[in-house]
Amino acid sequence: MSFNTFGHLFRVTTWGESHGPALGATVDGCPPGIALDESLIQPFLDRRRPGLNAMTTQRQEPDRVRILSGVYEGRTTGTPIQLMIENTDQRSRDYSEIARTFRPGHADLAYHLKYGLRDPRGGGRSSARETAARVAAGGVARAALSALLPDLEILGYMVQMGAKTIDRSRFDADEIARNDFFVPDAGVVAEWTEYLRRLRSDAHDSVGAVVEVVARGVPAGLGAPIYAKLDTDLAAAMMSINAVKGVEIGAGMAAAELTGTQNADEIRMGETGPEFLSNHAGGILGGISTGQEVVVRFAVKPTSSILTPRRSIDIEGNPVDVVTKGRHDPCVGIRAVPVAEAMMACVLLDHLLLDRGQTGGQRGRIGPQG
Amino acid sequence: MSFNTFGHLFRVTTWGESHGPALGATVDGCPPGIALDESLIQPFLDRRRPGLNAMTTQRQEPDRVRILSGVYEGRTTGTPIQLMIENTDQRSRDYSEIARTFRPGHADLAYHLKYGLRDPRGGGRSSARETAARVAAGGVARAALSALLPDLEILGYMVQMGAKTIDRSRFDADEIARNDFFVPDAGVVAEWTEYLRRLRSDAHDSVGAVVEVVARGVPAGLGAPIYAKLDTDLAAAMMSINAVKGVEIGAGMAAAELTGTQNADEIRMGETGPEFLSNHAGGILGGISTGQEVVVRFAVKPTSSILTPRRSIDIEGNPVDVVTKGRHDPCVGIRAVPVAEAMMACVLLDHLLLDRGQTGGQRGRIGPQG
Amino acid sequence: MSFNTFGHLFRVTTWGESHGPALGATVDGCPPGIALDESLIQPFLDRRRPGLNAMTTQRQEPDRVRILSGVYEGRTTGTPIQLMIENTDQRSRDYSEIARTFRPGHADLAYHLKYGLRDPRGGGRSSARETAARVAAGGVARAALSALLPDLEILGYMVQMGAKTIDRSRFDADEIARNDFFVPDAGVVAEWTEYLRRLRSDAHDSVGAVVEVVARGVPAGLGAPIYAKLDTDLAAAMMSINAVKGVEIGAGMAAAELTGTQNADEIRMGETGPEFLSNHAGGILGGISTGQEVVVRFAVKPTSSILTPRRSIDIEGNPVDVVTKGRHDPCVGIRAVPVAEAMMACVLLDHLLLDRGQTGGQRGRIGPQG
Amino acid sequence: MSFNTFGHLFRVTTWGESHGPALGATVDGCPPGIALDESLIQPFLDRRRPGLNAMTTQRQEPDRVRILSGVYEGRTTGTPIQLMIENTDQRSRDYSEIARTFRPGHADLAYHLKYGLRDPRGGGRSSARETAARVAAGGVARAALSALLPDLEILGYMVQMGAKTIDRSRFDADEIARNDFFVPDAGVVAEWTEYLRRLRSDAHDSVGAVVEVVARGVPAGLGAPIYAKLDTDLAAAMMSINAVKGVEIGAGMAAAELTGTQNADEIRMGETGPEFLSNHAGGILGGISTGQEVVVRFAVKPTSSILTPRRSIDIEGNPVDVVTKGRHDPCVGIRAVPVAEAMMACVLLDHLLLDRGQTGGQRGRIGPQG
Repeated sequence: MSFNTFGHLFRVTTWGESHGPALGATVDGCPPGIALDESLIQPFLDRRRPGLNAMTTQRQEPDRVRILSGVYEGRTTGTPIQLMIENTDQRSRDYSEIARTFRPGHADLAYHLKYGLRDPRGGGRSSARETAARVAAGGVARAALSALLPDLEILGYMVQMGAKTIDRSRFDADEIARNDFFVPDAGVVAEWTEYLRRLRSDAHDSVGAVVEVVARGVPAGLGAPIYAKLDTDLAAAMMSINAVKGVEIGAGMAAAELTGTQNADEIRMGETGPEFLSNHAGGILGGISTGQEVVVRFAVKPTSSILTPRRSIDIEGNPVDVVTKGRHDPCVGIRAVPVAEAMMACVLLDHLLLDRGQTGGQRGRIGPQG
Repeated sequence: MSFNTFGHLFRVTTWGESHGPALGATVDGCPPGIALDESLIQPFLDRRRPGLNAMTTQRQEPDRVRILSGVYEGRTTGTPIQLMIENTDQRSRDYSEIARTFRPGHADLAYHLKYGLRDPRGGGRSSARETAARVAAGGVARAALSALLPDLEILGYMVQMGAKTIDRSRFDADEIARNDFFVPDAGVVAEWTEYLRRLRSDAHDSVGAVVEVVARGVPAGLGAPIYAKLDTDLAAAMMSINAVKGVEIGAGMAAAELTGTQNADEIRMGETGPEFLSNHAGGILGGISTGQEVVVRFAVKPTSSILTPRRSIDIEGNPVDVVTKGRHDPCVGIRAVPVAEAMMACVLLDHLLLDRGQTGGQRGRIGPQG
Repeated sequence: MSFNTFGHLFRVTTWGESHGPALGATVDGCPPGIALDESLIQPFLDRRRPGLNAMTTQRQEPDRVRILSGVYEGRTTGTPIQLMIENTDQRSRDYSEIARTFRPGHADLAYHLKYGLRDPRGGGRSSARETAARVAAGGVARAALSALLPDLEILGYMVQMGAKTIDRSRFDADEIARNDFFVPDAGVVAEWTEYLRRLRSDAHDSVGAVVEVVARGVPAGLGAPIYAKLDTDLAAAMMSINAVKGVEIGAGMAAAELTGTQNADEIRMGETGPEFLSNHAGGILGGISTGQEVVVRFAVKPTSSILTPRRSIDIEGNPVDVVTKGRHDPCVGIRAVPVAEAMMACVLLDHLLLDRGQTGGQRGRIGPQG
Repeated sequence: MSFNTFGHLFRVTTWGESHGPALGATVDGCPPGIALDESLIQPFLDRRRPGLNAMTTQRQEPDRVRILSGVYEGRTTGTPIQLMIENTDQRSRDYSEIARTFRPGHADLAYHLKYGLRDPRGGGRSSARETAARVAAGGVARAALSALLPDLEILGYMVQMGAKTIDRSRFDADEIARNDFFVPDAGVVAEWTEYLRRLRSDAHDSVGAVVEVVARGVPAGLGAPIYAKLDTDLAAAMMSINAVKGVEIGAGMAAAELTGTQNADEIRMGETGPEFLSNHAGGILGGISTGQEVVVRFAVKPTSSILTPRRSIDIEGNPVDVVTKGRHDPCVGIRAVPVAEAMMACVLLDHLLLDRGQTGGQRGRIGPQG
């Protein structure tokens, strides 16, 4: 990761501000010969799109992605893929008053202190709108993974909103696409809907969330220890998403409370290879995937843009009260779900290529001849 | 981060295996003219050293660091600094039986599957002994930070072991150096000592921990959004430490339970600049430091090397029971404290240089002329 | 340099194919607060533009650059600057016959062998049209250098075409902009014009060239030895330009014929610092600028697209004769001049930032207090 | 390339000063399972060793390489390989007088201006002694290439010393190892020997050289356009060698004098694939290898350390005459031969891994089914 680029061999550089003419991603290092066109990327953007459901910002953006390079007759050519999304619903007048004020919880003050100036329109570069570019890049990664790892599945979902958690005994992957929360537990939808409605309308407030992303079908051997471990890169990928304050792999922070006997994921030989009797490790040991499900979880802080006044200062140092009007998600964690899936896809593809580079994708054998 | 290197401008490459002739760190990009010799690095290694206290492995390693390059007459020259630590107490016979067996919770199986072979002596490259090289590199970073940011303080300590947490109302920074746990709460030392003794000796078990690292005096403006955010790099730095399963910035995972009104760190103008009335953000907004304390926390899983048998397989796929004899910390989180401080120092120096490169270290002004 | 990106801190990623919808450059790491708009970049593109003069391809492209991000109210914000140039005059029908044929001297065969497929329209990614994106990025670099190094001058020009060389005793920098060759010697223009006319029209041929780029006002201290030496990075920058086959710094290949007494650039103390009595070094010693003029020279091979038939094969391995019709420069070296200036600007800005990062831009002193 | 590291996936970081305790290379990204021990590296160091023959410096260094990590039971493990060479014959008293003086043609002044201080002992980091570390790293690359590309041959040799060139009609590869010049033309040895003897002893002078390196058996498809082209990386690799002032690929600077009909390397279908009727391209088109011989050539300036006095200044700005006593090669180009071979090996291995990462090493087909 460096400045606005992430990835080792599959390298994604995002660009653009919330209210500039366009934003996008320059995707370099995609393998050649992969079937790709806009129709393979757009569905992921549609999932993340603002205004899609009742729980997210009412800003209306069609978020149409356009491929400007790197694809010829429906196949990637191995050259950079430029993905552009034009901003159409900018309404910059909504944001004019914040140019001289630093909104608490936002990056306003930090950008001003670092750069000496900032684009105040909709948060500029620090807006969560940047994640649309990640989702588009994730679409490219998914297309490549479909070809290279056809059995791979990536599934993201909410597991917690505020203090409310899902009941994992009711986990139903099919439910995720059916509700506005990307939540795999139909039993919480009604309550969460009502909670969020009151929080926004009555309390003028917002709330945090926890998102989990699982990848099934990840081959063993991905991850480049010591400093490009798979878990390290996943942690960085998730932490780089706006508003994320914590990242967990497998047992996560709860690993602190385990004993060694509890935590050790015991191993048995299965029909096709080693099998683990539990997965506290989250599918990663020593920074390398083991073939188990890769499990990542992260916390998203509550939306900082709220209607309840918060104390702050303006550029002259005067005390001000900040109320952020406009169209804001009361729980930004919801839309982080497709973003996190995209980051997972990018990281896995990147490590697949990286591993292929160093080891040729060969695998150590286990068995009588091992 | 890439393979065995981390950092953008202050780049640290660690090398070496647990039981090879030596291990070390190649430190590139250190500013020139910094006062440096072994005596400035050794104290940090001594803090991390195995066998130092009753709570950690009894392996006796003097861990003497030697500077092989990059320093002339006690000053850094701007060229690579090679830090070598020779392995003296290798006892490789202790580890011979594990060559054909995969220890649960360890990287053995993953390394075998990825690379097709592995150095089985003491975990080879995946051993926590690698962190000695990080601590040495951190000593170089500290020397540079002493010159460039004389007011900076970095403080790491345990806040939790198993289910036992410190009482933050008794927080005493001076206490940290006085006990075997790097814990800032004298009130827990006796209980933790007894708990750990029983855990190892009676239960033949181990336990996880949570470590916190705080940096005071970090100037505003460090962090290179979007993909080299300060929190992203810190998360990666901590996650790359052996056995770490979760990383938090500021409020961390608990941010999920906060509302927007609670989470917003309100701002007031202080005598020397903006001041925040709380620090849920952990000193970082939009990936950039704000001048507040930078707060990072991470969970370390329990030591996987325990005397209680765990089920596993050998290289032929046969079922085996693994008991790991030898000299192992019952709580590897303890020794993660100096390692985490070293990583914090490296990341902060790196971002100081990076920011100096891009912005010249200029800062946006706040005030009547702002 | 990696894949489609060059630079350490000032990082330029170019994207786009000759006949795709657009091409451009994603410029990351530009310092904030730099005055920038399209009018500061367009003149450099106009200089490079095809169809500009009688000596270059008749393809008509307005080559209008558009800034899509990273600039707010006429100032850079420190975030990525997306520069897009739409392709308007594509005429892909001119190139349809080459889809199954490998043109000698072109990248066709190599791209096919590497990627398994290629965009055959106008050379796709391997077209010299990609250099328009470099020139645009160079415009950004120039804007930043204007602010950071106001005395810096970068001057590129032809010194040789085929076997014809300029007479350096007639060197006149003002002449460069007045002729179609970017040549600083008015005395050769008529002859070169006639030579090139005959070469194209009568001989159906093309010819190579040598271009020189000089930078005056480069401060001492730029260059990061050993592997990011200023001359190393300049050599890579120039060699990456299409059709370049050789790069020289200072005395260049002729250094082989010098003796040590001839080659040593002797030093004397001038009024403002050290002065050199000659410049065989081309302004760089040990990979670091000395304050002298930085001098780079490179050879461009003749245009491979010619009307004289050349033997080749098609994708089935059948022998074919290739005649490349279309609008092609008979001497591509001419248009390499503004490209080389752009690369020089990018490399110098990058090293200025890199040096500022590592050393803070401090300089060793010479003098009684030295 | 960045600071002291080169390579994308096969990454080499060199460290150490001429007269420090040791120097070496940290080699990261080597594929696992490669047969490697010191005996496979030492012969390359022996070829480069000072004092080996009458034509090079009389400094006596055994230059014994020691592998400190990354190898277990004679096989690489995929982890960093630390190669250390201890400095045994330092004689730092020989160099004490230059601490306050800047030797013309050397990096002394540039290092002082950049870093504010320097290690003056034997040129410190800017000494050609650093190339021993490259040669050691090249030994690792060769070991990996032996396994991955068994038919690859890399051959370096002198083609010019001063104004004296070899007669290519007498080219004899076997002759290279038989003489002190690494020259493939037995007919020049006596004359060159006498010339160099007189130059050093009588004229107290030195002279430049041109070295050529050829790689046979390079598969098509290596090179990552646009900014990690194979020729770009080779140019950077050679230009980074001490005293190199020009680099050529294939026809090199002479390409400027060719016409398009001359320069086009025509193609015919051979029995195993495309064949070229000439090789002006030096085996690289569009930055990608074509399967032809890869041909690189570079000029080395004359040794700057000579007994003839040259004018310079000291650190106080006073005029001084510099005479460099000591043991210096009169033609440093000679010892650049094994260094250049090592760089060629490193770059080729790196690009083999990089290509394997992006394309999986698949190749486009030519033929009836093409």
